[in-house]
Amino acid sequence: MPELRKDPITGRWVIIATDRAKRPTDFVRPAAPAPGGSANCPFCSGHEHKTPPEVLAYRNGGRPNEPGWTLRVVPNKFPALRVEGELTREGEGIYDRMNGVGAHEVFIETAEHVVSMGELSEKHIEDLFWAFRDRINDLKRDRRLRYVMLFKNHGDAAGASLEHTHSQLIALPVVPKRVQEELDGARRYHDFRERCVYCDIVRQEVEENSRLILETDHLLAISPYAPRFPFETWIVPRKHHSHFEDAEIGTIQSLGSTLRAVLRKMEKVLERPAFNLMVHSAPIQDTSTNYYHWHIEIIPKLTRVAGFEWGTGFYINPTPPEEATRYLRDARV
Amino acid sequence: MPELRKDPITGRWVIIATDRAKRPTDFVRPAAPAPGGSANCPFCSGHEHKTPPEVLAYRNGGRPNEPGWTLRVVPNKFPALRVEGELTREGEGIYDRMNGVGAHEVFIETAEHVVSMGELSEKHIEDLFWAFRDRINDLKRDRRLRYVMLFKNHGDAAGASLEHTHSQLIALPVVPKRVQEELDGARRYHDFRERCVYCDIVRQEVEENSRLILETDHLLAISPYAPRFPFETWIVPRKHHSHFEDAEIGTIQSLGSTLRAVLRKMEKVLERPAFNLMVHSAPIQDTSTNYYHWHIEIIPKLTRVAGFEWGTGFYINPTPPEEATRYLRDARV
Repeated sequence: MPELRKDPITGRWVIIATDRAKRPTDFVRPAAPAPGGSANCPFCSGHEHKTPPEVLAYRNGGRPNEPGWTLRVVPNKFPALRVEGELTREGEGIYDRMNGVGAHEVFIETAEHVVSMGELSEKHIEDLFWAFRDRINDLKRDRRLRYVMLFKNHGDAAGASLEHTHSQLIALPVVPKRVQEELDGARRYHDFRERCVYCDIVRQEVEENSRLILETDHLLAISPYAPRFPFETWIVPRKHHSHFEDAEIGTIQSLGSTLRAVLRKMEKVLERPAFNLMVHSAPIQDTSTNYYHWHIEIIPKLTRVAGFEWGTGFYINPTPPEEATRYLRDARV
Repeated sequence: MPELRKDPITGRWVIIATDRAKRPTDFVRPAAPAPGGSANCPFCSGHEHKTPPEVLAYRNGGRPNEPGWTLRVVPNKFPALRVEGELTREGEGIYDRMNGVGAHEVFIETAEHVVSMGELSEKHIEDLFWAFRDRINDLKRDRRLRYVMLFKNHGDAAGASLEHTHSQLIALPVVPKRVQEELDGARRYHDFRERCVYCDIVRQEVEENSRLILETDHLLAISPYAPRFPFETWIVPRKHHSHFEDAEIGTIQSLGSTLRAVLRKMEKVLERPAFNLMVHSAPIQDTSTNYYHWHIEIIPKLTRVAGFEWGTGFYINPTPPEEATRYLRDARV
């Protein structure tokens, strides 16, 4: 059973994934990468038996766990957390831990062996977000779960272990520190100005127009004012909702074309970079978070995080966001 | 002039290093790595003209910026921050920024072309910390500077760009977020229990003896209870001091042998990993931080940080610290 442990100084939780404990040599000589192509790919149509049974699928036909699907959600075969078991909290001297109750699911974004999300149709990308909404609405009924994060690792440098385009969801029994910091910051801003900080960002970015990569009726793609990484990009909905799952139909529909355009621009300017994508949303059980505003963050993996960043949480970014914006805005896709 | 910008939600500062602005293609096709060996190494004895003039050197003889030194501190040739200029703070709509005043120095740990800190003598390693103390005591007279971090990036995966063993110091005009979190956490613990959390960690780790890698009269090397990364290791002084620069003579002397032993154990178990090392200490101008306890953190770069970690600040660690401890404790060096 994986274990959640809390750092007694900062309150940061970590998952000690004892089920997949590794010997030192596993790090030194990593397993050969999974062969490319669809022949051995567990995510390709026709290979449904290579994954645990699906918890959700969008289909044109066919029966569960058989071909005919266009998007498929399955439990992670090597989960960082498990749904079974009691949520037991206990102390160990000055330390705190609980058992690793939660969920870890994989969203297979297409039945074909496509390796880049930017090559999917707008409808496929849109469907990922409908599926995310469906899964949140299901998981939220489990009152032990307090936070759900959808994220995507694309490319080896971003931590992906399989090339077939996919995203992941992790549901946690605690609200993570980084999320709590955003919630606290948004609440402080709201207390002080009686406005949402993200709504203010939307207003200022549209007006200044120096970090605005593209805009639609529903969404803005921007380079944030203080990005940690070169070409870091946020997609922010114009309409204020704290929870992704409450977003308007039009906004979710619009995510397909907007995210596709952003990814294709990045692929063009940065020559198909590895990247991480994260959906930031308010804790699923908490309805008192109206000061928060869900959004998406995308970080291409171009630089290495070094000792200064690990020690201080201070990032050195060699590319001003206004410059990144110019490159991305000008890229024709 | 580099610029410091603040994220309006979390309060996280970033350094936008405009002086070394990069075009997208610089990330895609990185410059060829500097050739190995001492012929072109700017840090080797005899090549003093390849660095800016030294701000400190320990010497057996010779004049400044000439051979004869055993340790040498020089300004970084491509600094993230600069000492010159006024510290101007200003707003830009809802955003905050200031100019990048600070210091960025390189500690060349030996005159010989040694590429691994673990191969240095104990005295060389000890001297690094004496030099760090000397530089803090000098920089602290500049009242604009509020925080100094010493760190080391070893190996390409850890962000090092030159192989000759060296460390770096960055002095900042603000207390960084990650440091403030540790300070706040240590203060909360102290308010609640009237004890230092790190002193309590020292007591519990010595007693439990399951995460204790080695101990001396002055220092403990431990695997922390909730490590973010496999084989993450902390070196904690037994004697409570909030500021590294106030540490006792015996403790600093003992750092040479302790750090050397830890690094050699890591090199043996993990086959010469890339790693980051950071000295965590209280803000230099602040004397009210008696609840804090300086220490060193070392993270070998074995896993990749992926979307889940970036989005949540929650880390998945496949190696329980008790297991890492066993490997490191048993490694004979």
